[in-house]
Amino acid sequence: MLDIKFTPTTNKKPKPDQHNLGFGNYYTDHMLIIDHTEGIGWHDARIVPYQPIQLDPAAMVLHYAMESFEGMKAYRTPEGKVQLFRPDCNAERMWNTNARMCLPQLPVEDFVQAVKALVKVEEDWVPSLPGTSLYIRPFIFADEPHLGVRTSKTHQFMIICSPVGAYYSTGINPVKIFVEDEYTRACPGGTGFTKCGGNYAASLISQVKGHELGYEQSLWLDGVEHKYVEEVGSMNCFFKIDGTIYTAPCVGTVLPGVTRRSCIALLEKWGYTVSEERLPIVDIVKASKEGKLEEVFGTGTAAVISPVGELRYEDDVCKINDGKIGDVTQRLYDTLTGIQWGTKPDDMGWTVPVE
Amino acid sequence: MLDIKFTPTTNKKPKPDQHNLGFGNYYTDHMLIIDHTEGIGWHDARIVPYQPIQLDPAAMVLHYAMESFEGMKAYRTPEGKVQLFRPDCNAERMWNTNARMCLPQLPVEDFVQAVKALVKVEEDWVPSLPGTSLYIRPFIFADEPHLGVRTSKTHQFMIICSPVGAYYSTGINPVKIFVEDEYTRACPGGTGFTKCGGNYAASLISQVKGHELGYEQSLWLDGVEHKYVEEVGSMNCFFKIDGTIYTAPCVGTVLPGVTRRSCIALLEKWGYTVSEERLPIVDIVKASKEGKLEEVFGTGTAAVISPVGELRYEDDVCKINDGKIGDVTQRLYDTLTGIQWGTKPDDMGWTVPVE
Ligand SMILES: Cc1ncc(COP(=O)(O)O)c(C=O)c1O
Ligand SMILES: Cc1ncc(COP(=O)(O)O)c(C=O)c1O
Repeated sequence: MLDIKFTPTTNKKPKPDQHNLGFGNYYTDHMLIIDHTEGIGWHDARIVPYQPIQLDPAAMVLHYAMESFEGMKAYRTPEGKVQLFRPDCNAERMWNTNARMCLPQLPVEDFVQAVKALVKVEEDWVPSLPGTSLYIRPFIFADEPHLGVRTSKTHQFMIICSPVGAYYSTGINPVKIFVEDEYTRACPGGTGFTKCGGNYAASLISQVKGHELGYEQSLWLDGVEHKYVEEVGSMNCFFKIDGTIYTAPCVGTVLPGVTRRSCIALLEKWGYTVSEERLPIVDIVKASKEGKLEEVFGTGTAAVISPVGELRYEDDVCKINDGKIGDVTQRLYDTLTGIQWGTKPDDMGWTVPVE
Repeated sequence: MLDIKFTPTTNKKPKPDQHNLGFGNYYTDHMLIIDHTEGIGWHDARIVPYQPIQLDPAAMVLHYAMESFEGMKAYRTPEGKVQLFRPDCNAERMWNTNARMCLPQLPVEDFVQAVKALVKVEEDWVPSLPGTSLYIRPFIFADEPHLGVRTSKTHQFMIICSPVGAYYSTGINPVKIFVEDEYTRACPGGTGFTKCGGNYAASLISQVKGHELGYEQSLWLDGVEHKYVEEVGSMNCFFKIDGTIYTAPCVGTVLPGVTRRSCIALLEKWGYTVSEERLPIVDIVKASKEGKLEEVFGTGTAAVISPVGELRYEDDVCKINDGKIGDVTQRLYDTLTGIQWGTKPDDMGWTVPVE
C-alpha cells in the first residue's frame, strides 16, 4: 500500500468543451508522482497540482530514452459512476516493459492504487458524452544527470490524465492502412513487446510516409523477413479470413494489447476460432483476391476497435467488405464499449469501479 | 550563420580536480539552446547559464523518445590552444539521424558554428592533463505537450559540455567483451545507424547481463541471423585476422563512427587491407583457435581506441594477443590521440581550431 500525499491545486482550470476534446490536448488539475532511488526504492508518492517538470539538461531520459509508458482510460457510466477497464493488465505490462528496459518496476497493486487515487481526485474531469473518456497516462523516466551509458540511479514514475474524445475524429468509419515494407518496428531480441518510448520515435517515419500516400496508419511486418503481419501504428490487428480470425502472436515483437486480449476472450466465448499463428501478408492479399478476406480491424485502448476498409501492400490494394464495418468488428465494438462505458453487463469481470 | 545571443552566468562554478573527472559527472557554466518551431524553423539561438529545463509532463520526448544526440570533444594542445576533431562529421551524422527520426535538421555549418561558439565561451573548462578533454554533447528533443503519436511541432536543440578524464578509468588496458546472442541492438529498416536515444535504452539490459558475467561491454550481432558481428556498446569494432583488418559495414544497422572512419583512412594510408564485408562471429572464433586472431579493438570518441583482450562467445573464450595491446591498435591510438591533442602533426586536416 502506497501512502499517497495530496496537495490540492488552488487554481482549478475550466473544463474544456466535451464536443471538441480531440486526443491528448487537455490535461487535468493534478498529477501523481512517485520517486525511485537506487538503494531506497519507491518513495514520496504524491498527488500535486499539474505543473512543469524540472530536469537537468544532462538527465538521462533526454539522451538515452530511458522511459516507458502505459495508456488506459476511465469511463463514465450512465449512472454517473467512474470505472476502469482491466487496470491490472496495464500494471502487469509496465512491469514487463520495465524489466526489459532496466527501469524500476512498480508492483501491480501499487500501480492500480495510484491510478485509482488520481482518477478519484480528478473525477469531475471524466467526460460523459458518448465516446469520450479520461485518458490515463502512467509513465516513468530516468532523471539522473549523467552522460555515461548505464542504468540510472533515480527515476520518476508519474501519471497524468487527459479528457479525450473518440480517437478517430471520423468515428468508427473504416480506416485506410498501408503495409510498411521498408522500415521495421521490431525484431526478435528487441523491444517490440514493450511500451518503451523508443519504439514510437522509430515508427514516426512510416507514419509520415503513410500520410503522404494517403493512408492513416502503417501495418508493420516482422523485422527479419518482412513477410508476416505484426501490428498497426498503435493497435493490434485482426483478420477474418474464410471464417477464421487471425492475429499475430505476441512472441516478443508485438505489443500484447489489453484490447487484443479482451477481443480474443470474447471471440472464443462466442465460438470463433482464433489463430495466433504467424500470417504472411501475401496470404492476406491472396485471400482478398479470392473474396475470402472478410474483415480486418485494429484494436487498442485509444480507438477500441477500428475497422480497416482498405489495405495496400506494394501495388495491391485490397478493399475489405466494400468499405463497410463487418459483423464481428461491430459486435466486438458494441460489446467492448458497452462493458467499458457500463451500458452492458460486464460478464467478464473486467471493470473496476473508482470509489 | 546563426545569430547567437550570449547571457553570461553571474555565478561561475569552481573547476573540478582534473585527476578525478570521470565521464559525464561535471557540467560547465553555460549551455547553448536553439528552438525549432514548425512553420518558423530555427530561432532564438542563445548561450545561457547552465540551468534546469522546464518541461510539461506531456512533453513528447518523455513519452515517445523523440530525441537524438551527438558526442564529440574539444582537446587542449601543448600550446594551450583548443581544437575540435572533425566536427563536420558529427554535424552530418546528426543530420542523417534526424532525417530517420523525423526531428528537425540543423544545417552542418550552423551545428559547427554553435559548437565552436559554446566551446569558446567555456574555453577555461577544457582540461589539460593527459587524456582529459571537454566532452561536447549536442542533443535535440521534442518538447510539445501532446499525447497523440505524431511528429512534434516544437523542438529544442541544445549543447552541454562536460570536462572528462579518460573513458576507461583503467587506461588503455585491454577490456573483456562478451558476444550478445540473445538481445538485439538493430535490424534492417530500423534505427541502428542513428544516435537516437532509443538505441541506448534498448541496449542497457545487455550491459547489465555482461557486467554480471564479468564483462565490460557487449558485442552486438546482426538482428536477423545473430551471426555477423556489428559493434560494441558505444564503439565500432575492428578485427585483425591473418594480416587483414575487418570491420562491419555501415549499412543501416551500425553507427557510422567518426573514429571508425578515421581509423579506416589511416589504416589504408599505412597500406593495410581493410575489409568492410560482413564477418561471422564463428569465423572470428575459428581464427582465434587457429592462432590467426591477431588484434581486436573498439573505436569511439569517448575511449578513442580500446584494445580487446578477451572475447567470449557462448562457451568459447578467445584470449587475444596474450592480453597485450597489438601493434596496429597501439599505432592507431598514438596517431589519433596525437592528432587530437595536437602532439603530432595533423596530416589529414582533421582538426579545427576554436578561436
Ligand atoms: C504499438 C501498439 N500496439 C498495440 C496497442 C494496443 O494496446 P492496448 O489494447 O493495450 O491499448 C498499442 C496501444 O496501446 C500500441 O501502442
Ligand atoms: C553505438 C555506437 N557505436 C559507435 C560509436 C563510435 O562513434 P564515434 O567514433 O563517432 O564516437 C558510438 C559512440 O559515439 C556509439 O554510440
